Amino acid sequence: MDKIRRNERMSAMMRLLSGAPNTIFTLSSFCDMFGSAKSTMSEDADLLRAMCTEFDLGEVETVTGAAGGVRYRPVVSRERARATITELCNRLSGSERVLPGGFLYYSDILSTPGIVNRMGEIIATEYYGQEPDFVLTMETKGIPVAFSTANALGVPLVIARHSSKAYEGSAVNINYVSGSGNIETMSLSRRAVKGDQRALIVDDFLRGGGTARGMIDLMSEFNVQVAGMAFVMATTVPEKKRIAGAKALMTLTVKEGDPDLAVVRPADWLLA
Amino acid sequence: MDKIRRNERMSAMMRLLSGAPNTIFTLSSFCDMFGSAKSTMSEDADLLRAMCTEFDLGEVETVTGAAGGVRYRPVVSRERARATITELCNRLSGSERVLPGGFLYYSDILSTPGIVNRMGEIIATEYYGQEPDFVLTMETKGIPVAFSTANALGVPLVIARHSSKAYEGSAVNINYVSGSGNIETMSLSRRAVKGDQRALIVDDFLRGGGTARGMIDLMSEFNVQVAGMAFVMATTVPEKKRIAGAKALMTLTVKEGDPDLAVVRPADWLLA
Repeated sequence: MDKIRRNERMSAMMRLLSGAPNTIFTLSSFCDMFGSAKSTMSEDADLLRAMCTEFDLGEVETVTGAAGGVRYRPVVSRERARATITELCNRLSGSERVLPGGFLYYSDILSTPGIVNRMGEIIATEYYGQEPDFVLTMETKGIPVAFSTANALGVPLVIARHSSKAYEGSAVNINYVSGSGNIETMSLSRRAVKGDQRALIVDDFLRGGGTARGMIDLMSEFNVQVAGMAFVMATTVPEKKRIAGAKALMTLTVKEGDPDLAVVRPADWLLA
Repeated sequence: MDKIRRNERMSAMMRLLSGAPNTIFTLSSFCDMFGSAKSTMSEDADLLRAMCTEFDLGEVETVTGAAGGVRYRPVVSRERARATITELCNRLSGSERVLPGGFLYYSDILSTPGIVNRMGEIIATEYYGQEPDFVLTMETKGIPVAFSTANALGVPLVIARHSSKAYEGSAVNINYVSGSGNIETMSLSRRAVKGDQRALIVDDFLRGGGTARGMIDLMSEFNVQVAGMAFVMATTVPEKKRIAGAKALMTLTVKEGDPDLAVVRPADWLLA
């Protein structure tokens, strides 16, 4: 085999690191792959770090210690997050997407990979510090964004269901009050979660907070701590939600007096 | 700004290309980013292509013509696909995951990003040639794999629901016969799909093929052609399914006479 050049090593490392975000790769694994010395790989990692910073492409970090190595996080700068979400808000605002009952059609946004991955990275950026062990969502619409967030955090996704299924094994069921005031059921397989873990709740929509409250209650049944809550969209009405401390990417107002006009704006924390 | 070195350009390109698979980036966009000449960017792309081939990391291709540029596809070699799926089968086989009724618990596998992304890439590799316009799945468990496949193909995901929802707008509903013999409903928003498109159906589980048959019928209501069907797991019984031409990654046999033992094997086409 010819000697492998730095540009080959660095671009291969970039592919591998960004393909498994927030996962530590040992320098030895790269040494084996490229037949290089550890000092060389360490220099490569330093150059990658500088490159990512220069082009606002996320963070490459060297982690020291016994379980040490290199990891990549698709961290999104506040400036880039604001630009992405503002553009999305412009797409969603107006009258074309308003449905009878004041609902907003945005299912397409919630399952287009190019958009979903950016949203997942923005959410993950806010919660790397909390070190969640998994992401929890409630079926169905929030699953892609929750999955993308889990991918960026390098942790599994756990999906709560409306009812228990034979193929999920024994389950914990709880009841909760949904946005429409109905009593509904939320179910999670006993095998899905271990106690003493930390969950990040991610979902597509926050109105009153009933479903989110249900997810918090469900986690307490498993002795799991909720490390944070993030939503793609939160309504401005009701202002008071049943939960506190949630971060939404966008806020939705359907104007009084003009029920066919949706105003979608980036959340305040993104504008700060 | 200092002159940007080839190793920086190439690793930045690799990050951008692999972050938006099967999407064409114009050489001009890279020229603007790095302040380089087109001939230089073209050389960089050639080197990336060679590197990806050497390390079995997918394909970088230069597309010529008016809409030309460079694109990355996370193509998985048959050898690597076989190794990945064989390892997964070993994890799933045995008695630990068998549930009452002969069901297999593998929801964890279906929502762990590191596994799901590999499965999505393997499925996408088989269907790049079909050029689907979107991926269709039926809620819930197959959504992450379907999303990951859509991501690798660079197309949107479309999710059929069990019932129509106010926030999906007007919908097309069809009835289908489920695996358990019940008549069930499948619903898809009118806005989700345009006619004359091509769909790739991706789901987690294939037993009799009733749900898959329903998805095909649903697509014909939208004048959409089905370009292919892929499943994570197919049961060996019944041998005859209601659909033909589907590709599964794994086959599941729950042994007669030993209903607590699951045998999970890579599908034949992966072993060929």
